[in-house]
Amino acid sequence: MKIAILGFGSVGRGIAQIVAERDTGLVITAVADSKSGCIDNNGIDPLELINRKEETGLCGEKGITAEYIIENAEYDALVEVTPTNAETAEPSLGYIRLALSRGRNVVTSNKGPIAKNYAELKDLADKNGVRLKYEATVCGAIPIIHTLQYSLAGNKVKRLYGIFNGTCNYILTRMADEKLTYKEALLEARELGYAEADPTYDVEGIDAAIKLVILANAIFGMNKKIEDVEITGINSLTSQALELAEEDELTIRLIGEINNEKGILKVSPRVIPKNHTLVVRDTLNAVTIDTDLAGEITLIGKGAGSIETASAIISDLLFISNCHDGSP
Amino acid sequence: MKIAILGFGSVGRGIAQIVAERDTGLVITAVADSKSGCIDNNGIDPLELINRKEETGLCGEKGITAEYIIENAEYDALVEVTPTNAETAEPSLGYIRLALSRGRNVVTSNKGPIAKNYAELKDLADKNGVRLKYEATVCGAIPIIHTLQYSLAGNKVKRLYGIFNGTCNYILTRMADEKLTYKEALLEARELGYAEADPTYDVEGIDAAIKLVILANAIFGMNKKIEDVEITGINSLTSQALELAEEDELTIRLIGEINNEKGILKVSPRVIPKNHTLVVRDTLNAVTIDTDLAGEITLIGKGAGSIETASAIISDLLFISNCHDGSP
Repeated sequence: MKIAILGFGSVGRGIAQIVAERDTGLVITAVADSKSGCIDNNGIDPLELINRKEETGLCGEKGITAEYIIENAEYDALVEVTPTNAETAEPSLGYIRLALSRGRNVVTSNKGPIAKNYAELKDLADKNGVRLKYEATVCGAIPIIHTLQYSLAGNKVKRLYGIFNGTCNYILTRMADEKLTYKEALLEARELGYAEADPTYDVEGIDAAIKLVILANAIFGMNKKIEDVEITGINSLTSQALELAEEDELTIRLIGEINNEKGILKVSPRVIPKNHTLVVRDTLNAVTIDTDLAGEITLIGKGAGSIETASAIISDLLFISNCHDGSP
Repeated sequence: MKIAILGFGSVGRGIAQIVAERDTGLVITAVADSKSGCIDNNGIDPLELINRKEETGLCGEKGITAEYIIENAEYDALVEVTPTNAETAEPSLGYIRLALSRGRNVVTSNKGPIAKNYAELKDLADKNGVRLKYEATVCGAIPIIHTLQYSLAGNKVKRLYGIFNGTCNYILTRMADEKLTYKEALLEARELGYAEADPTYDVEGIDAAIKLVILANAIFGMNKKIEDVEITGINSLTSQALELAEEDELTIRLIGEINNEKGILKVSPRVIPKNHTLVVRDTLNAVTIDTDLAGEITLIGKGAGSIETASAIISDLLFISNCHDGSP
């Protein structure tokens, strides 16, 4: 299957590396970064691409843009991993619309377009007989979307709840283990690269809320906006609160929850037993799916990282490549 | 999609109940239990079937056998959930062979045929252009097989390890929590219906080993027999060993492991930290998949139960019904 990659940062290069190293049946025919692009409908050598990008900072010629590639390259699936503004969802949203309109499958790692425009994009995909896949948008390497769409098919999901943000989980783990204050733990997370210079998006629960909105709209057919999520972050949590919890063999985690029966989305710090399945450590994510037939199924794994994101993208591509007709 | 069900015990009836209650697109055209059977190529009312079985102990007429149904009914997929001897794999094995030879998809919950004859059966399925699915054979409701085949596609699995037997896990949980001896905990497990009158199959690690053989052969392309698994059960574990572990915040669990790089399969009680992800309680199962791209992904859930098994069967059926061409 021929793929065009938009965005050639660490995720894009990770995908190229995987295509180079293993027998996926995937062929890269076009790549664009923010400054350049290249097209070869017979297939581009992925390692040559990675080298060129490392040596020159460019992946191709300056005149070849993402839009040009979407409209002119030969590809079956667009891999859309551009750096995108989470608020406006651009430029990702425009690229996805254009590719779907041209009857091409799309795989994206960008949360913005899926959280904001899922219904419109899915409709566009259906009209054009192609697929829109977005496993990488929620919980990184954990195949939560695939599990909900396929592995637990036939089940009714009553509730889904868990840890959707690794930065917050790291801070809470360190506050509990080392009796750090919130500020000390945040500083440590920043030094280790787990938190951004401006950590608002993570610590105020917005990132977790966006992931809930994606699952609510894409999997449960709701029509939610970020404003519909009741959000409390961890930024005003005191070390005293954690110490009190610890005394009773409890701890605090930032839990995101979708109540599918009531249609309620919520992100908040919650006190839970230390031996609870969801009490994972450091930057891990963990999600429990509460179903009517299979009971509670919990998935735990790395919720972020370039290679983990590339892994989710590749599994989406292989699914498009191998499974046809009638499936979401 | 039309399905024929062989075996109308609690799993078979659970499947019929699900078909009756929700919009699966599945139509039951034939059913057989060990004494009777019925065929209606226009579709059988699932609730009427369940009532008939409850009232008369039969699901149809005495002359209609499983073999007759396989050869004469109209169906796209055979649901093979008969009570089957784990040693000989019969009658399941014969039914599966016959249905695949007739160009019908097969979904089974029986471990025997998949553990013993996977390569032969897969070959037969491929030759006839149909699918053989067996999600229910390993860890009940946990979609471990689907996760390995699809959700983590593109990943190389280095190691896979976890808790594959709920009976042993219950006994070990109770020994640790209540300081019971092995015999006391086993007695309790029996009273609660978690252990058979003859618990050998579970407590000696054979059940866990069979599940490893299934994964090794079906997912990792090995050619293993139960004799190839290094097995130590929990039946000679002392409460002293558990108490010693508990003193250091450790505990003991029966861990099954496939080392995919070395081709080694092993089941044994292991000492692990009490806060380890795999330390789940009571009859739960938990499996960690150690991959090169996605890192470690852990799945936790109910490893047994009629409705959980029915859930796995239904997801296999919906996958066959919705996804075509080229996928395993």
